[in-house]
Amino acid sequence: MSLKHLATGSVAPPIVSGKIRLYSMRFCPYAQRIHLVLDAKHIPHDVVYINLTNKPEWLLEKSPLGKVPCIELEGGETLYESLVIAEYLDDAYPQNKLYPGNPLARAKDKLLIGRFNSVINTLYKLYVSTSIDRDIFDEVLSELGLFERELVSKGTPFFHGSSPGMLDFMIWPWWERSDVVRVLRGDQFTIPRDRFKRLLEWKSAMKENPVVRASYLDTEVHAKYMRSRRAGTPQYDLVTA
Amino acid sequence: MSLKHLATGSVAPPIVSGKIRLYSMRFCPYAQRIHLVLDAKHIPHDVVYINLTNKPEWLLEKSPLGKVPCIELEGGETLYESLVIAEYLDDAYPQNKLYPGNPLARAKDKLLIGRFNSVINTLYKLYVSTSIDRDIFDEVLSELGLFERELVSKGTPFFHGSSPGMLDFMIWPWWERSDVVRVLRGDQFTIPRDRFKRLLEWKSAMKENPVVRASYLDTEVHAKYMRSRRAGTPQYDLVTA
Repeated sequence: MSLKHLATGSVAPPIVSGKIRLYSMRFCPYAQRIHLVLDAKHIPHDVVYINLTNKPEWLLEKSPLGKVPCIELEGGETLYESLVIAEYLDDAYPQNKLYPGNPLARAKDKLLIGRFNSVINTLYKLYVSTSIDRDIFDEVLSELGLFERELVSKGTPFFHGSSPGMLDFMIWPWWERSDVVRVLRGDQFTIPRDRFKRLLEWKSAMKENPVVRASYLDTEVHAKYMRSRRAGTPQYDLVTA
Repeated sequence: MSLKHLATGSVAPPIVSGKIRLYSMRFCPYAQRIHLVLDAKHIPHDVVYINLTNKPEWLLEKSPLGKVPCIELEGGETLYESLVIAEYLDDAYPQNKLYPGNPLARAKDKLLIGRFNSVINTLYKLYVSTSIDRDIFDEVLSELGLFERELVSKGTPFFHGSSPGMLDFMIWPWWERSDVVRVLRGDQFTIPRDRFKRLLEWKSAMKENPVVRASYLDTEVHAKYMRSRRAGTPQYDLVTA
């Protein structure tokens, strides 16, 4: 499996029998969601990485909006949108169910995944901005309060219980990158341990989880990619092993 | 069941045993999604209408973002976000399944429901604007092309097949209002029959469906509400029977 991101002029690699094809980008948090689900459910798959600056001409045939993640099935059917793909995989592959079996618990997980979109949108404001923006960071912290309270009320190490589930994996990619802002912008962008005790314990536990380890990159690598992106020349091929 | 929209100073009506409570607003297309699902699945429920300009103080206890639709279950549990509620009801009540049973078909329905969000966002630009905006309307038409092609390729009267399903009901509320722009803005905002033959046949078939009839309001009433909203004084209680 090549780690090199395919670009304009490349040829679409043929689908391998018995494997789901994932089109991904090494630093895309939405694509990482699907790596996590495929790994958590032990679904046979291979990965084709895509250069999102100079996209292959054939990408639009697979992913009509030209985005990753996108999956391709053996029959040539494709799906895009990370949450749709994640739910499809959990539906179609009965092993290691990531959503709770109870419909109400499942709905509540979906609500929290939806609420996390606010955290993501606010975080992006921080990434693209160059002013101090302590107030934007405070907004992120305020939105995270809901998740801290949820862990406190559940009393389990993970949102899903004793092991990570759909909600844990859907929000993890942004937690893996949560120290990047501090590295890029300074110590005032540190998540305070006294206010987010349970969430930071959750983060440590997630970091040790074998499924998370499989796609994990450390803060320095994420920061290096983010710097290249902010400079207008994203280095997709930073990771070579 | 009162059609009057409850406002600031009202008292929250107690939950009725054996019934799901729906908090709604008579002209909210997202809330209408849930009326359609409850009616399609024959789920016993009552409705409390909410004045969204002067919200009841108790609304935030039920719906943390102060929005409708919101449902309350007998145990006091609440859910918000129309799509989360719709999927919960389809999960929790096995009769008349609205999503296809096949995981891939279900995922494709979710993709189209997601793509319809672009139509909704572009439509709102038309509603709030007062300039000519023929180009925005052209953008709506272009986004609708995907849905016309889908009906052509399926060859069935409804997206779900011979009867409406989740995708049909999730997009219907905006179709019920699709002539409002023409009424408010002029004939150049007419969906062309030659280009959207199947979608307009679908619209006629939906309009005759008993589930759709149960919450249906005609274009004139929607236009009257929309005018009151644009004037800054939304008339929630326009419909009295």
